[in-house]
Amino acid sequence: MPEFMDVHHNMKGLTKEDLKAAHDADLAIQGEENVVFKSAWADPEAGVVYCLSEAPSADAVRRIHERTGHPADEVHPVPLAV
Amino acid sequence: MPEFMDVHHNMKGLTKEDLKAAHDADLAIQGEENVVFKSAWADPEAGVVYCLSEAPSADAVRRIHERTGHPADEVHPVPLAV
Repeated sequence: MPEFMDVHHNMKGLTKEDLKAAHDADLAIQGEENVVFKSAWADPEAGVVYCLSEAPSADAVRRIHERTGHPADEVHPVPLAV
Repeated sequence: MPEFMDVHHNMKGLTKEDLKAAHDADLAIQGEENVVFKSAWADPEAGVVYCLSEAPSADAVRRIHERTGHPADEVHPVPLAV
């Protein structure tokens, strides 16, 4: 399954609890789009969040994040990884 | 050890071999700055590369990437992760 890195901006002040709540909301419905969110990393000072997933398409990733109230600003297929 | 996500732009057309060569060059000298590059993901169409590392500081990450000829455009501490 292809991997994607999506990016959220304007998340300044995000807490660990906020990140976990957002991630848990994604996990709760990801199966409806066959998405698997694997990890997420946040820089709360710059307000940026990176989410790594496996998904059938970028749009599937977008739809899950939109439904849980935190639309992604960018969704990148990342076919190359080391 | 703190984690960092660094980002490289303007990498359009990057191949799997390019990514591996760049990553291997970083691995070869990372110990001199106590950096551990863990993974890297690339979107060759958009020309963006994300590198996840553990390091004593963002500057340590910057120095390794500069010395190996691919300076990072952004280096973000990511103290929050799920």
